[in-house]
Amino acid sequence: MREVVIGLLGAGNVGGGVVRILQENQADIERRLGASVRVKKILVRSLERQRDGMVPAELLTTDPRDVLEDPEIRIVVELIGGIEPALTMVLDALGRSKHVVTANKALMATHGEVLFAEAQRRGVAINFEAAVAGGIPILRALREGLASDRIERITGIVNGTCNYILDAMSRTGAAYDDALKDAQSAGFAEADPTLDVEGGDAAQKLSLLALLGFGQRIDPAAIPTEGITRVRPFDIAAADGLGYVIKSLAEARQTPQGPVLSVHPVLVPKEHILATVRGSYNAVLVESRAMGRSLYHGRGAGPMPTGMAVVSDIIELCRHMFAFDAGRPPPEAFSTIEHATPLPMTEQAHENYLCVHVTNVPGILGRVASCLGRHGVSVKRLEQDLRGEGEPVDMVVVTERVPESKVHGAVTEIDGFDDVLAPTHRFRIREPDAID
Amino acid sequence: MREVVIGLLGAGNVGGGVVRILQENQADIERRLGASVRVKKILVRSLERQRDGMVPAELLTTDPRDVLEDPEIRIVVELIGGIEPALTMVLDALGRSKHVVTANKALMATHGEVLFAEAQRRGVAINFEAAVAGGIPILRALREGLASDRIERITGIVNGTCNYILDAMSRTGAAYDDALKDAQSAGFAEADPTLDVEGGDAAQKLSLLALLGFGQRIDPAAIPTEGITRVRPFDIAAADGLGYVIKSLAEARQTPQGPVLSVHPVLVPKEHILATVRGSYNAVLVESRAMGRSLYHGRGAGPMPTGMAVVSDIIELCRHMFAFDAGRPPPEAFSTIEHATPLPMTEQAHENYLCVHVTNVPGILGRVASCLGRHGVSVKRLEQDLRGEGEPVDMVVVTERVPESKVHGAVTEIDGFDDVLAPTHRFRIREPDAID
Repeated sequence: MREVVIGLLGAGNVGGGVVRILQENQADIERRLGASVRVKKILVRSLERQRDGMVPAELLTTDPRDVLEDPEIRIVVELIGGIEPALTMVLDALGRSKHVVTANKALMATHGEVLFAEAQRRGVAINFEAAVAGGIPILRALREGLASDRIERITGIVNGTCNYILDAMSRTGAAYDDALKDAQSAGFAEADPTLDVEGGDAAQKLSLLALLGFGQRIDPAAIPTEGITRVRPFDIAAADGLGYVIKSLAEARQTPQGPVLSVHPVLVPKEHILATVRGSYNAVLVESRAMGRSLYHGRGAGPMPTGMAVVSDIIELCRHMFAFDAGRPPPEAFSTIEHATPLPMTEQAHENYLCVHVTNVPGILGRVASCLGRHGVSVKRLEQDLRGEGEPVDMVVVTERVPESKVHGAVTEIDGFDDVLAPTHRFRIREPDAID
Repeated sequence: MREVVIGLLGAGNVGGGVVRILQENQADIERRLGASVRVKKILVRSLERQRDGMVPAELLTTDPRDVLEDPEIRIVVELIGGIEPALTMVLDALGRSKHVVTANKALMATHGEVLFAEAQRRGVAINFEAAVAGGIPILRALREGLASDRIERITGIVNGTCNYILDAMSRTGAAYDDALKDAQSAGFAEADPTLDVEGGDAAQKLSLLALLGFGQRIDPAAIPTEGITRVRPFDIAAADGLGYVIKSLAEARQTPQGPVLSVHPVLVPKEHILATVRGSYNAVLVESRAMGRSLYHGRGAGPMPTGMAVVSDIIELCRHMFAFDAGRPPPEAFSTIEHATPLPMTEQAHENYLCVHVTNVPGILGRVASCLGRHGVSVKRLEQDLRGEGEPVDMVVVTERVPESKVHGAVTEIDGFDDVLAPTHRFRIREPDAID
């Protein structure tokens, strides 16, 4: 199998996530790409530090030249963060005609222009999907999915720390300081949370959203930015009484006079789709002329979602490299497609809603319940209006999670009862999938 | 400026949308692409039919060869729908090494394999983002954004007609037949709605989602499919009482035994993110190993959203063609990036939430209100607890939409009042953006 050799700059949280995804999802990645991705070298500050067990010690180096100057390495993945030494190393990699993937929002928001110019000069690409909203493919949506549309407005909940704190304040009535402490102990806020809670992080991300959505380069420092530190429990309660929740929004809008951008706490109507974004989740709402509103929602941070976005960028670069080598467009989603037949639903298990239409005779409830029990269908809830004896009534049953075949057997038997007036209605119930 | 010449097969609703987007968004498309897209020929069944005023009559032809055999046309856009004659024409276009963009879910779900093989043989691409969920870039998300992840489950609300009908039944208590009639007169259901309401349309889309997400080809006819026709107002009311809403879900899941797919009405917990999908909107929830849950939400049908997806596919093809010609990776989102400075927020207008912390003295409410009035800040709502005279109280004000400068002026004056005990708290209010 063809192999692409890559080098990593940095092996912190996201670096650990990248290594883990390349290993855990190796078979899937190879099937999608028709090639394997091999990490050859990983630059670290110290060889001594304790790391994620999946980061192989023999690949570590403290010399950037081991990554940057290795001719076999075609893609350099920058995960150091901050401006220097990341900027110098990325420029060096591009200068050697290596493709670059980075998760560095500060770098891209403040020095993107010089990096794009150098990449173009060298005929290579620089991908940075992971820099905004972690694993949510919002930059791709703006660059490709909505490429034919006129983007009018972008509204993002792009800082998980702020959303986590405001959401906790809304749910528990906690004061800002207490919610911050909780967020810190839960790992959703840094020891020094300034960049997050004062809006600086969101302003950098907003600058990148405006770059991809409007084709405008806007200095993050020029974006009016207000943090969440002055939001009080009183404001949250008053907003709640008025029908709003307080969210930290990063907004960019085109007007005939020019772009309007801001990062600020905003009262959002409770029925608004952005009001439903919970905990550390991120979401970006895009308003565009032909499409109207579209929303992209998911985990905006964390080693695995961010690492996933980095590795997806690597895969895209590989596809383009292969396509150029072969003189044809990039391959489809998978290098090989297999034929498959869906499993029969009868082998699946679900919770069920049953509506049994019966004559309300004494004992009918018990007969239905024991029939279900005989077939191994555990009942979670059974409701029947006991008034109107002799009248037709609807008995509503909610079952536990049981195999379809058992439900089917029970319903077939029940539908044969003399007192059952119509075939039993059955719908499956979706599990809650609570968003944390 | 460089020009890409394309030909259209079909000029129905989506075709009209494609022509309209190419015209209305022309400047934006040219800025993104650094090239213009010109429609040279449009195949129609009859030259006589009345059409969208934007479809230029002089481009129409009834002879497919005018599109398929024109060597200048590099991209053929198939918008006829159904299997034949679309299949024959698309194979013909690919056979002539023309790239193809299509919105045809039936064609791709049932004959995708032969089309992919022919495209690969000819070194061209076939793009079909518009075939699933209209303008929502879900196929791109599966192909690229989540390419490094293991996709475990995909759950879609991918049929706008079903969601519109079920949503109407939930909101109004209407019976299925009445809700269908309403949907038909509102343009959200066909005169013959069978393919939508019986789930066949969703099964075709689910087959394509499984193709891109799992790399598995699954015959839509093999997917267990139940329509929404047996959902009764009683079921919706009973589900509501139990904490659920009924949605038509298209689900695909990987299990160790094989794929499980189904299209069926399901009880979804009200707090579930899929329960919030209203009217004719579509949404796809993807669950994958590293990323967890991500959601893609927007308009799944209609000439403009679907046309937008088609034109975005055209742009992607153009970028790849240019990149190959230039021997370098595809260009960035925009061919030129402009520098921009955000407008000052003081020139913007918003609704506002104000919290004025005052000593509760007689007349203070009137003084605050008249100060706001003097500055031109209209008040929508003003609440003050009148108990506790002489005590500190929080007066909550909701303003109409007013320029920031006026609010700022009024707040500055109010904060100078003797009885005001702390700087007034102000947050902006997001407009409702009701999802229809």
